[in-house]
Amino acid sequence: MERPIHVSLERSLKSPFALRSQLRNAKRVVIKLGSAVITREDECGLALGRLASIVEQVAELQNEGRECLMVTSGAVAFGKQKLAHEQTLSMSMRETLHQRDRQQSSAKTSFVIEPRAAAAVGQSGLMSLYDAMFSQYGVKIAQVLVTKPDFYNEETRRHLASTVSELISLNIVPIINTNDAVSPPPLADEDLAGVQVISIKDNDSLAARLAAEVQADLLILMSDVDGIYTCPPSEEGARLINTYSPQHAVSIQYGQKSRVGLGGMDSKVRSACWALEKGISVVICNGMAENAVRNIIAGRKLGTFFTDYKNGGVSIESAAEHARDGGRQLQSLTGHQRSDIIQNLAEMLLERQPQILKANAEDLKVLSETSTTKHGGVVPLRGRLTLTPAKLKSLSDGLKQIADSSPDIVGRVMRRTLLATGLELTQVTVPIGVLLVIFESRPDVLPQVAALAIASANGLLLKGGKEASHSNQILMDVVRQALETAGVPQAVSLVSTREEISDLLTMDQYIDLVIPRGSGELVRSIQQQSRNIPVLGHAEGVCHVYVDSEADPMRALKIVRDAKCDYPSACNAMETLLIHEDLLGNTGGNGTSSSGTFFSEVCTMLKNEGVKIFAGPSLSKHLTFGPPPAKSLRTEYGSLECTVEVVKGLDEAVEHIHRYGSSHTETIVTENREKAERFLHAVDSACVFHNASTRFADGYRFGLGAEVGISTGRIHARGPVGVEGLLTSKWILRGSGDAASDFAPNCGKSFLHQSLPLDDASVPERADATVTTDSDPTRAN
Amino acid sequence: MERPIHVSLERSLKSPFALRSQLRNAKRVVIKLGSAVITREDECGLALGRLASIVEQVAELQNEGRECLMVTSGAVAFGKQKLAHEQTLSMSMRETLHQRDRQQSSAKTSFVIEPRAAAAVGQSGLMSLYDAMFSQYGVKIAQVLVTKPDFYNEETRRHLASTVSELISLNIVPIINTNDAVSPPPLADEDLAGVQVISIKDNDSLAARLAAEVQADLLILMSDVDGIYTCPPSEEGARLINTYSPQHAVSIQYGQKSRVGLGGMDSKVRSACWALEKGISVVICNGMAENAVRNIIAGRKLGTFFTDYKNGGVSIESAAEHARDGGRQLQSLTGHQRSDIIQNLAEMLLERQPQILKANAEDLKVLSETSTTKHGGVVPLRGRLTLTPAKLKSLSDGLKQIADSSPDIVGRVMRRTLLATGLELTQVTVPIGVLLVIFESRPDVLPQVAALAIASANGLLLKGGKEASHSNQILMDVVRQALETAGVPQAVSLVSTREEISDLLTMDQYIDLVIPRGSGELVRSIQQQSRNIPVLGHAEGVCHVYVDSEADPMRALKIVRDAKCDYPSACNAMETLLIHEDLLGNTGGNGTSSSGTFFSEVCTMLKNEGVKIFAGPSLSKHLTFGPPPAKSLRTEYGSLECTVEVVKGLDEAVEHIHRYGSSHTETIVTENREKAERFLHAVDSACVFHNASTRFADGYRFGLGAEVGISTGRIHARGPVGVEGLLTSKWILRGSGDAASDFAPNCGKSFLHQSLPLDDASVPERADATVTTDSDPTRAN
Repeated sequence: MERPIHVSLERSLKSPFALRSQLRNAKRVVIKLGSAVITREDECGLALGRLASIVEQVAELQNEGRECLMVTSGAVAFGKQKLAHEQTLSMSMRETLHQRDRQQSSAKTSFVIEPRAAAAVGQSGLMSLYDAMFSQYGVKIAQVLVTKPDFYNEETRRHLASTVSELISLNIVPIINTNDAVSPPPLADEDLAGVQVISIKDNDSLAARLAAEVQADLLILMSDVDGIYTCPPSEEGARLINTYSPQHAVSIQYGQKSRVGLGGMDSKVRSACWALEKGISVVICNGMAENAVRNIIAGRKLGTFFTDYKNGGVSIESAAEHARDGGRQLQSLTGHQRSDIIQNLAEMLLERQPQILKANAEDLKVLSETSTTKHGGVVPLRGRLTLTPAKLKSLSDGLKQIADSSPDIVGRVMRRTLLATGLELTQVTVPIGVLLVIFESRPDVLPQVAALAIASANGLLLKGGKEASHSNQILMDVVRQALETAGVPQAVSLVSTREEISDLLTMDQYIDLVIPRGSGELVRSIQQQSRNIPVLGHAEGVCHVYVDSEADPMRALKIVRDAKCDYPSACNAMETLLIHEDLLGNTGGNGTSSSGTFFSEVCTMLKNEGVKIFAGPSLSKHLTFGPPPAKSLRTEYGSLECTVEVVKGLDEAVEHIHRYGSSHTETIVTENREKAERFLHAVDSACVFHNASTRFADGYRFGLGAEVGISTGRIHARGPVGVEGLLTSKWILRGSGDAASDFAPNCGKSFLHQSLPLDDASVPERADATVTTDSDPTRAN
Repeated sequence: MERPIHVSLERSLKSPFALRSQLRNAKRVVIKLGSAVITREDECGLALGRLASIVEQVAELQNEGRECLMVTSGAVAFGKQKLAHEQTLSMSMRETLHQRDRQQSSAKTSFVIEPRAAAAVGQSGLMSLYDAMFSQYGVKIAQVLVTKPDFYNEETRRHLASTVSELISLNIVPIINTNDAVSPPPLADEDLAGVQVISIKDNDSLAARLAAEVQADLLILMSDVDGIYTCPPSEEGARLINTYSPQHAVSIQYGQKSRVGLGGMDSKVRSACWALEKGISVVICNGMAENAVRNIIAGRKLGTFFTDYKNGGVSIESAAEHARDGGRQLQSLTGHQRSDIIQNLAEMLLERQPQILKANAEDLKVLSETSTTKHGGVVPLRGRLTLTPAKLKSLSDGLKQIADSSPDIVGRVMRRTLLATGLELTQVTVPIGVLLVIFESRPDVLPQVAALAIASANGLLLKGGKEASHSNQILMDVVRQALETAGVPQAVSLVSTREEISDLLTMDQYIDLVIPRGSGELVRSIQQQSRNIPVLGHAEGVCHVYVDSEADPMRALKIVRDAKCDYPSACNAMETLLIHEDLLGNTGGNGTSSSGTFFSEVCTMLKNEGVKIFAGPSLSKHLTFGPPPAKSLRTEYGSLECTVEVVKGLDEAVEHIHRYGSSHTETIVTENREKAERFLHAVDSACVFHNASTRFADGYRFGLGAEVGISTGRIHARGPVGVEGLLTSKWILRGSGDAASDFAPNCGKSFLHQSLPLDDASVPERADATVTTDSDPTRAN
């Protein structure tokens, strides 16, 4: 396709991208580097590392077939460095060679250089540096020096546009800079006294004008601030705005110009809005951030994205704030009111069954249309995605169970202590705050998790899989309707499928706990990404069954079969079978185990069940012709496969489990009680069983009610977690004008520390518990 | 000082630095960049970002007054890129200009270029790129091309040494590269078929020889591996060796050569050991890591540090492994045995009092000697550091209290459920695992924390302040002696003061929980640094007292005085006083509040106590001449200062607390019970009080026994935390050959889920609890 030279004539109707994710499609990109991004802090010389990294990213875009333009500062800094260097060289040779404190040499050269002269000195060097850098990626560049009047004059503007378009069509990256040598001198500015700066802030509007001239798709304005804030970032409650629409403008308070060499944020916003009007998407971001360009093009939440998309819905930050408020409102209800919401929800699921199934059918239709391209995995996915009247009925029944058990969950008294006469301490359960639950293809998770959050008075953000979007949308409608009956519609929100999980996981000021519900990969990826928000879950379930020499063979066979075959993809399924060496029998030199031994029986059983066996190294040594070796002793097959290994006894079994296990669930099969107790005591896993299948490790089977998840973490909750895992506690002290200093030694009062019954709220007038005074030597204050 | 040209004659006795921290003193540094570090993955062209960042760091070292030498690869990649570029240009012009899939252009040019020719093509370009980059920092470079024989021939070696020394004395960074054009062709290697590489691995030994020749202090070998591992990193249990001594050599298994273009790790280790013998410290590290050079020079734990220091003590990894083992051994003891250890410890503290006080006196002496340079803060520090017979006595008493209460802490049954006949579930308390406690100047924290860890059967790593090192050492001796009486000396270790906290916080595979005990800054810094290990603690205590319109003035005055003045630097001291506007009285136009109002009384009282008042914005509006304005409403003064703000009523008070508070402790003073309950319910902080001082928020005052810390986190523990905070739980299931599939619908068995009393261990034969089957609709598998 021949590209016309005057691009501005080509595209007439243009509108900015509505969503971040569409930035991937940006073809023509203008990148403006503020001076703070590429010069060093002493403003003398370039910050090479950052510059090189940006060049790398721009070259990558260009080599992907995009058309990049750069608007750059840096000539002044380059020139300053060059001039300082010259001056150093002109010092007496002897002085230079034997200078003792060389470390100061660059810092000391603070002689004032007129910035326009420095720019003239630096311009050529800057361009040849760019040239050398871009040439490493096979990218050609061209220098374009402009002045502001070039844009006002119709003729020069046409010439400029024509030149730039020609360069673009030649696959050359134009590097645009203001022609400082012929620019007016910097304005005298009282605030900036002593720091002479060229009016570099003009580069924002220059970049915006250029972007409009070449009808760019995207303009990236990089400086040293993270983006646009609701108010100056130093103030309490300042919040970075991720998505900015011009109609937001009223809600932003601008601070005074805070940085030298940077236009005030309002001038940035004006430039951005101006470009937006011309149909260009704009991102204002911090150029210091690693991979800024790559991340912006990938649609990640970096800096402030300018779009005029009106119907963007609630931002995730607003949803999170609503969830916190909604959670607090939920908490202000009585337990029975919360229970009623869940009851309503349970009934509405049945009432609105036709619409729900219709929406679900749409998801299934989309799946059928797209699944042909993928091979494998569609059938189980389809199963998880499908809603049926029976599923809805049992879902509804489950919610009713949650409703029945929920009235007393929040505000339950955990501990009551009479500290002293008239001073009573109570510890009560309270919700954690705001939960983020990330789930995959099962839409029925949505109402279930919503019910758990309502029961525990937590605010909830839900992030579902794209494949279930229609189903999730209608189920969320039903949840919202149920919440509205109690006037708390905000407590639960469905986060748009557009939101990146990695972005959600950075919102630790909004979210208190993340619960991933889905595949091991999902959980693992969330655990790895979440740095500041705790994650409740388990990525791995490498569960072991150890069959001891004193095991009852029939019990052992039954437990092994159940642990491996009942539901092989569950996290509590057995992955490794450890067998006591005595059970191998005499395998002899020919490698065939005597038939009739437990080992041969269990292998036969597993084979009959279709289980593929892999041998651990010790087992392989025992057998001349054994099963293929296991790739790793820490494998979670999640299918009809397992590792079999032989151990010398209980201690070696425990050691193996500690070394290769994931601390999920392990079982010993033995008739020897003493050995069993040793195993139960020694194995450091969330669940440790004797003569029972690993498959019992499950919140429902444990009698915890609905299961929030299984945790292999050691903090907060461990093993199967019920709704208690969504609660924390708060200490309430009711006094009568008490001061701690009253309890200092010899100050009259003493602590009683008398435990009070949990179900009795009346405060006894006097009690004769052990009297202690406030002189605890172990207290570190 | 004139520097002699032959440095090798100057320094005769040389030994490598014994400790990482001494690397800060390295003057002459040889940095070797492996080709993987600076070339792109496609081996065509340089990875500019990384290269520039390394140049930045090397220039920084040079400008600090160090003497750097670089051994670099990269000419081949540069040359390849250059040749590929030429070839692209020689394509037909039209094809080039309108190439649709430009993104493939660089990847496609996979025509084979003889590497020695590519090196010749690239050498000059590489050097001029280095020149341009270093010139940005005012650093001059020189090119030195060498071949291996140059080192074997005595004459050429002398010439080379003389040239390099001359360059160094001229403050020029020599850039050394092999003269590939005259090197022998690469060896044919079956493993590397198809990938033609110059024997770049020679650069390791080249760098080592060069370092020896110029008597460098430090040699940094950078490649794309993190350092030396105990066995090939892909294997289970492979561990990066942080500090390597030649005597370790036996414990390393080398894998096969795994990477193209890299010498096997054994050749690297040989080069490093060879340099070490010549008295040069060596670090092998990953050049991809950000700030690698800076971090190594700062003494941080990066890569593998080679030293022949014999008496390095136990490495932190070994200490952590010992702590885990020791913790498991502690757990295998009975509660009474653990209690006895603590009793012994309590007695030994008194018995060894003379030695302990002597060691403490040494710390105090060092403090006196060094404290003259610092101004302020020495008196309280001295107080915290000083041990006295009285302090030891009360410390010992405290430990006895812990001992008395400890036998039942671990293994306590939290829940018992009969799942079905013969299938009993028990949830018991177990230790968390390995704790890391970081404390500052108070040595008495050491035995106290050790006692808490022993009581809870956790392994413990202690990291104390340098200023208390003598005291900590002897107290640790006493703890170890007490542990030895039970045969578990490894359970508690004192980590060397040399260890960097930031390094410890990366060891999430060894440490389960971090507990900082010290200043807010310490806690904040640890919370910020710890990415993967949970931190129990609170960085901020911005506590509020809200005096309601219906407060009893005398009670209010008493509570405010106690909350602010009892111990102003405590985290539970009041920082902000919120006053109902009715209590201001008629402030009138002249801004003087009517005397006799609560407001004037509380201000007078605070002034009399020496408290400096700062006004919130609303209060300032009320008064014409008020106190100076508070800088921020979220200020933790930690001294006799506080913010006073006026609010319209309870709701505004709650809103203020949620907005500016740190969720630590808040109090309402009112005689209106209904308002009090609303406040207690609505405020979302760890501790919420009515008519009691905030100072009661304390583990001892709450009756929790010794306090582990106060947590403002919402997960695991909240508010004052006793020894329970060091525990987690484990689920034990005792069955009789049970399979989960037995409980599937219509499979015979059903769940009973009958709660059993906690103190009764006998299993009832039959129970008639509600019968449920395994068809929980809410369970997500």
